[in-house]
Amino acid sequence: MAPILLNTMGTDHSDYIEEEVVHVKNPHLDSMEEDILYHFDLGTKTHNLPEMFGDIKFVCVGGSANRMRSFAQFIHQELGLPGDVADIMDICAGTDRYSMYKVGPVLSISHGMGVPSISIMLHEMIKLLHHARCRDVNLFRIGTSGGVGLAPGTVVITDKAVDSFFQPQFEQVVLGKVIIRSTELDKGLAEELLQCSTEIPNLPTAIGNTMCTHDFYEGQGRLDGALCSFSTEEKLEYLHKAYEAGVRNIEMESTVFAAMCHVCGLKAAVVCVTLLNRFEGDQINTPHEVLLEYQQRPQWLVSHFIKKRLGLIQ
Amino acid sequence: MAPILLNTMGTDHSDYIEEEVVHVKNPHLDSMEEDILYHFDLGTKTHNLPEMFGDIKFVCVGGSANRMRSFAQFIHQELGLPGDVADIMDICAGTDRYSMYKVGPVLSISHGMGVPSISIMLHEMIKLLHHARCRDVNLFRIGTSGGVGLAPGTVVITDKAVDSFFQPQFEQVVLGKVIIRSTELDKGLAEELLQCSTEIPNLPTAIGNTMCTHDFYEGQGRLDGALCSFSTEEKLEYLHKAYEAGVRNIEMESTVFAAMCHVCGLKAAVVCVTLLNRFEGDQINTPHEVLLEYQQRPQWLVSHFIKKRLGLIQ
Repeated sequence: MAPILLNTMGTDHSDYIEEEVVHVKNPHLDSMEEDILYHFDLGTKTHNLPEMFGDIKFVCVGGSANRMRSFAQFIHQELGLPGDVADIMDICAGTDRYSMYKVGPVLSISHGMGVPSISIMLHEMIKLLHHARCRDVNLFRIGTSGGVGLAPGTVVITDKAVDSFFQPQFEQVVLGKVIIRSTELDKGLAEELLQCSTEIPNLPTAIGNTMCTHDFYEGQGRLDGALCSFSTEEKLEYLHKAYEAGVRNIEMESTVFAAMCHVCGLKAAVVCVTLLNRFEGDQINTPHEVLLEYQQRPQWLVSHFIKKRLGLIQ
Repeated sequence: MAPILLNTMGTDHSDYIEEEVVHVKNPHLDSMEEDILYHFDLGTKTHNLPEMFGDIKFVCVGGSANRMRSFAQFIHQELGLPGDVADIMDICAGTDRYSMYKVGPVLSISHGMGVPSISIMLHEMIKLLHHARCRDVNLFRIGTSGGVGLAPGTVVITDKAVDSFFQPQFEQVVLGKVIIRSTELDKGLAEELLQCSTEIPNLPTAIGNTMCTHDFYEGQGRLDGALCSFSTEEKLEYLHKAYEAGVRNIEMESTVFAAMCHVCGLKAAVVCVTLLNRFEGDQINTPHEVLLEYQQRPQWLVSHFIKKRLGLIQ
């Protein structure tokens, strides 16, 4: 195992081809003397980013800071890395906006809830990978979601990330003008993940569209928010339309994640577990221990993928 | 001081008029046997919400969990309450989605970054106030922002919360349909806060419109994101248009905060400090200690307001 990891952690990238470098799409960045990644509490003058992050090959992101710390500890064990998991420190400890953990070639970052929160993280993470001169990076969002017609605990690999109108697009406002971006994800990565899921026992997995909303209650047709102006029937009609459009789960970050990775040429996948079946209810009342187990499922899948890629398993 | 606080903390609200109760706008809630406030890790069956929260009169919210803990400790000292500030515990310790601290009649809650993140918190917070049968509650968002034509460190009391097109409205998608909501804030509260600002030395304060965007980089016309497709001139043109429309600062939560409070009949105000003047740059490179001091300024203003309302100062 050691020589394989050493390969991925080396700093000599001369054997890689230029196309696989992480690109930013901003001509202004080159002329900046310093780049402060404010919400990470990192910067190009204060930190040696190539030395700290140059060997990163897998970036895994998820909403909860605690969950992304757990994932870092889990992947440390899975990769058989030396040292104590308790010593894995939050690289962004100087701020409470996001948490970040590095474990060998894997970076684990929290992004909070919703499109704006993950978008700030993505801007700074993509710049980080660029400044660190990372190459051949795969990105995974490992999250939680509401299921549509699926048993709770099902892992959904996203085919298309769609908006509230079931369209595979993301609306970005730039200087007061609306720009539409494609939310295309990497087909190969999704298929490879689906193959991995068949190699793990007791991991119910589906591939389908993921609807990304900007609101957890009204926007997802929940009847239990502080505001609700629709009936149970209208709610179910909307969810059935979503199901007919291929939607199998609902969360709050996938469209901007897919859109930004697509623009920057980064291979990305979304893997979310369903915590409930929205045809059957709105409240998450499953026992805490069961929910914790569900939340580990996307981690198992992505960990399996990473170990295969690193040649640790066949 | 003690008798005044006891008045506000009493559980006998029989002398209040019915109109001042916190209203939810959801007919389904009454028929629910239990309401689990999932992202707070609280519920109507597991917690005695009227006993825990019935005396709340002031709810203060802000993005950062650390900052809202600091605010709780600060207001504890300001109100001269008994006990050690180190004993103020996070009520939502069972989850890392939000942090919540209660100090006498003041509730301090973090909401993360962006409209979706604060909207989940607002739904559950408004339901919490409703279940706890709170009355006469004032809400304050105390946050950070980018200034437009103002010196860094200026406190902006929001007149109108406007969107990226400078309109005082919030677009909410409900079951795939777009609904427009007013972002009207309480005029009286804003005026009372402005009066308070004149009573505090060295607190530069302005009243103006606050623009709420769904993105920190492209959406706010920053040239330093991973993506940027516009020139310095186009950026400045947009910011000047914003200034002409009365915008004095830019942040990422005010429209939905104003809209949801307005629908539920809650008196609300937005008080954000500017960390930089966007006419002069995009990066936040002010020393950490200076930023920390800036971030305390909205807290001083709201604390002064609360102390006046409680009769602790004239």
